[in-house]
Amino acid sequence: MPDEFPTSTWADCDDSLNAAADAAIILRTISPEQIAKFLTLYAERIEARENEIVETTHAETALPKAPRLGEVELPRTTNQLRQAAAAALEGSWALPTIDVKLNIRSTLAPLGSVLIFGPNNFPFAYNGIAGGDFAAAIAAGNPVIAKAHPSHPNTSRLLAEEAFAAVRETGLPPATVQMIYNIAPEDGLRMAADKRLGAIGFTGSRAAGLKLKAAADAVGKPIYAELSSLNPVVILPGALKERGAKIVEEFTGSCLMANGQFCTSPGLTILFSGELAEQFIAGVKTKLESTTPGTLLSSGVAKNLAGSVKILQSAGAELVTGGSALAGNKFANTLLRVSGAQFLAAPEKLQTEAFGNASLVVVARDAAEVEKILAHLEGNLTGGIYSDTAGGDDALYEQFAPLLRSRVGRLLNDKMPTGVAVTPAMNHGGPFSATGHPGFTAVGIPASLRRFAMLQCFDNVRPARLPDALKNKNPNGRMWRLIDGNWSQSDVSA
Amino acid sequence: MPDEFPTSTWADCDDSLNAAADAAIILRTISPEQIAKFLTLYAERIEARENEIVETTHAETALPKAPRLGEVELPRTTNQLRQAAAAALEGSWALPTIDVKLNIRSTLAPLGSVLIFGPNNFPFAYNGIAGGDFAAAIAAGNPVIAKAHPSHPNTSRLLAEEAFAAVRETGLPPATVQMIYNIAPEDGLRMAADKRLGAIGFTGSRAAGLKLKAAADAVGKPIYAELSSLNPVVILPGALKERGAKIVEEFTGSCLMANGQFCTSPGLTILFSGELAEQFIAGVKTKLESTTPGTLLSSGVAKNLAGSVKILQSAGAELVTGGSALAGNKFANTLLRVSGAQFLAAPEKLQTEAFGNASLVVVARDAAEVEKILAHLEGNLTGGIYSDTAGGDDALYEQFAPLLRSRVGRLLNDKMPTGVAVTPAMNHGGPFSATGHPGFTAVGIPASLRRFAMLQCFDNVRPARLPDALKNKNPNGRMWRLIDGNWSQSDVSA
Repeated sequence: MPDEFPTSTWADCDDSLNAAADAAIILRTISPEQIAKFLTLYAERIEARENEIVETTHAETALPKAPRLGEVELPRTTNQLRQAAAAALEGSWALPTIDVKLNIRSTLAPLGSVLIFGPNNFPFAYNGIAGGDFAAAIAAGNPVIAKAHPSHPNTSRLLAEEAFAAVRETGLPPATVQMIYNIAPEDGLRMAADKRLGAIGFTGSRAAGLKLKAAADAVGKPIYAELSSLNPVVILPGALKERGAKIVEEFTGSCLMANGQFCTSPGLTILFSGELAEQFIAGVKTKLESTTPGTLLSSGVAKNLAGSVKILQSAGAELVTGGSALAGNKFANTLLRVSGAQFLAAPEKLQTEAFGNASLVVVARDAAEVEKILAHLEGNLTGGIYSDTAGGDDALYEQFAPLLRSRVGRLLNDKMPTGVAVTPAMNHGGPFSATGHPGFTAVGIPASLRRFAMLQCFDNVRPARLPDALKNKNPNGRMWRLIDGNWSQSDVSA
Repeated sequence: MPDEFPTSTWADCDDSLNAAADAAIILRTISPEQIAKFLTLYAERIEARENEIVETTHAETALPKAPRLGEVELPRTTNQLRQAAAAALEGSWALPTIDVKLNIRSTLAPLGSVLIFGPNNFPFAYNGIAGGDFAAAIAAGNPVIAKAHPSHPNTSRLLAEEAFAAVRETGLPPATVQMIYNIAPEDGLRMAADKRLGAIGFTGSRAAGLKLKAAADAVGKPIYAELSSLNPVVILPGALKERGAKIVEEFTGSCLMANGQFCTSPGLTILFSGELAEQFIAGVKTKLESTTPGTLLSSGVAKNLAGSVKILQSAGAELVTGGSALAGNKFANTLLRVSGAQFLAAPEKLQTEAFGNASLVVVARDAAEVEKILAHLEGNLTGGIYSDTAGGDDALYEQFAPLLRSRVGRLLNDKMPTGVAVTPAMNHGGPFSATGHPGFTAVGIPASLRRFAMLQCFDNVRPARLPDALKNKNPNGRMWRLIDGNWSQSDVSA
C-alpha cells in the first residue's frame, strides 16, 4: 500500500490528552440526546460512504468484501452505534438508584477520556474509532482517543473523517473524538498511566495487552483488555454418534471463518478417544484439505501463526494436516492432535493461541481425564459442549459443565463459538487471561457502557442540583431506575 | 492483652486455599435459601452473644461500648448480614438478563473464594469475618478466607466462632468460612496472586493495599481495595455567614467521631480567606480544645498520626491547636491550616492522610484558587459542599461541584461525610487512590455483591440446564430480570 501515516510524538499524545480532558468536562454538560444524535449521524455517514470504505478495507486486510465486510461487519458496526445511541437516550444503562427517604441517590456517570486500542481482525466492529468500545465509551459520555491499528490505517482514516464530520455537525466538542495512527510503545504505556485519562479499552495480543494493563493498574486506572482465547469445545460421544458429520461441518466452518482470525475461533477441541473421534478428525482433515486457505490479515499474523504451531508441536502435538506457510501471507489449513496425557504434561504450552486457521484436538482417554484437562484450562471467552439430543450424554454434561462454566465467559450448547450477537444478554468477556476482569463484557449494550463509568452517589444533594437521571421526575418516562429496591419507569412520588 | 494467637505458615494458607476452592464448587450447587439462612442465623448468633463481644472489642480497641459498639456498629453489622441474606434470596443483585428470541441469557455468578482483609477501625462492620465485604462475598455465593486484623483478634475469634457454628447448623461446606490470624506479609501477597482465589477485598492502609493490588493485578485477579481518603469539604462564605456556629459543631463532631478514625472523616476543609474563615477556625479550635481526646485504636495508629502531622507541617501547614502525642495512645485534638498558595506548592504532601483526630484547613484567596485546589485533589470516598440556603452561594457551587464530583465517590450537600448509610443508593468507593476501581462500592446492597461475581452468559443452553435465575419461570416471583430490555418480575412467556 502506497500511503504513509504519521507517527505521533509524545508531544502529540500530550496534546490529545489535554484536549480530551477538556472535552470530557464539556461532555458532562451535554444532553444524552446530543450524544445519541452524534452516534446515529455517524452510523448514517459510514453507510453513505460504505462502498469506498469496504473497498479500502478489503485492500488493507484481504477480508472478503461480501459477505464479510459489506454485509456482515459494517452493518453490525452501524447497528452497534445505533444501539449505543438508544442506550444513551434511554439512560437505564447507568443503573440509577434512589433511596427516597434518606435522599441518597446514585448513578454510573462518565469516567473521563477513554483510550482505545482496536485489534487487527475486526477493522470495523472493534475499530478504536467506530467499534464496540468506541460506541460504549461515547454513549457513556466520554471522549475517545483512538489508536488506529497499523494493519488498516486507511480504513481508520475514512472512519475518523466521518466521525469528525458527525462531531462537527452535532456540535460536540471537537476533541470528543481523536485518533492517533502510530506511537512509540513507551508512549502508549505512558498514556495508559496518565492521570488525565479515565480508562483504557484494549483488544489485541496478550503480550501488548499485559504491558498496558500493568501500566494502568499501577496507577489505579481501569483497563478493559481482551487478550486471548482458545474457546474450548467438548464434543461428547453421543453427539458424534448422532450427528458427527454435521458437527464436522459446523466445526470446520467455524474454524475457517475469516481464516480463523476471530477471538472466538474454536482453537481447542476435546474428544473421547475411539472410533468416533477418529472419524471426526478424519472428516475435519478432509474438509480442511479441500478448502483453499485465505490470505491472513498481515505478514505478522502469518509469522505468529507459524510460530504458535511450532510451539504446539514442540509440546507434543502432532500434525494431522497443514502446518506450513504458503506464499502471499497464507498458511495451510491446519489441524493438530495430542493425547489427553500429553496435554496434561504441558498444559500451558498446549494452550498457546494459534491465531489463524489452525486448531488443536485433544483426544482424552476417559471422563476423568477430561475433568483434569478442563481443570487446567485458563480463562476463555467461550466454551462449548456438544451432546446428543436423546439424553445419552447428559451425565457427562453434568460432570463437565460446572468445570467449564467457571472458566469461560459464555457457555454454549451444540453451537460453535464464532458469531457474537450484539444483545444485552451477550458476554464477550471472561476470566483472566481471556480478559483482565471477569465481571465485564465488551459486547452487549447496555452492559458494555458500564465499563467506562464511575459510580457517583449524591447524598442530601438539593433537588435542582441533581443530574436529571436522579431527579424525582423520570427524565424521559422510559428510564428504568431502582427506586427503593424496585425497578421502575415512574417518577418518584414527592 | 494476655492472649496469644497463632501465625499461620504458608502450608496453612495453602490448605485454606484448597479447602475454599473445594467449598466454592459445592456452594455453586447450594440454594440461595440456604445461604440466606446462614447469614440470618449468623446475625442472630452475634446478637445472642452481644454483651461478650462488645466487652471484648471495647477492651481491644478502646472504642466506647455505648453508643458506638453496642448500639451503632453491632446493629449495623447484623443489619448488613440480614440485608445480604435478603439480596441472596431475591436474586436481583445478579442482573439476570434474557434475550428470549436468541435464547442468550446471562447473569452474574459466584467468582470463587474471596480473601478479605478487614481494617483496624471497624471491628464489626468491616471485619473480614462479619463485615460488609464478608456479607457481600457470601451472599454472592463465595466462600471467604478472612484475615483477622491484629488490633482485635479476640473480637474476630468470637465472631468466627459464631460464623462456624452457623455454617454447621445450616449445613454449608465447613470451608465456606475460614479465618487466619496472622501471616507473613509475603504469604499474603502470595495468596492474593493464587490461582485458587476468586477475588480479594481489602480495607486498610494505602501502602499495604497497593502491594496486594500489585500482586493481584499481575495475575488478573479482581481486588477491591479501600485505601485512603481525605473527604474534602468546601464551606462556602454564605453558609458560614448564615450558620457558621452550627457548621463548627457539625464539623468538630464529624472530625472527632471515633477520634477521627473513620475512612470518611473530614480531613481537608477548604475555606475562603477572610473574617468568616477566621471565625470558623477559631470556633473549631475552641471546640477541639474543650473536648477530651479519646484513646486511639493502637500504638501504631498513634505513631502514624504523629508522623502524618509532621509531614503536613513540613509541607507548610501551621498548627492551630494540638499536634502532640499524649500518654496512653492518645493524641491532642489537632487542627492545622495552610494557605491556598502553600497547598498548591505541595499538593501531594498536603494530601497526606492523618488518620485520627487531626484535620487540615486550606484557606484560599479566591474562587480561582479553590478551582486549582480542587483540580489537584486525588480520588476520595466523599466530598462535600456547604452553601447558604438563600442561593447566595449558588454560583460558586456551580463552579466547584463538577470539579469535586469527578474526584469523589459520594458528593454531599450541607452534611458531614461520616455516617455511611447501608442503602442500595450508597457509594462507599471512589476514584484512585481512594479505592482501586471507581465503578464499585463496598457498602450498599445489592451493588456490593457484584464485586465478587463473574459475568456468565448461556448461549443456546438447553432449558433444564440453565441456572434457576435464567429459566423461563421466575424462580421466586420477586426477582427482577432484564427481559428483552425491560426489567420485569414476570416469567418469560414461552
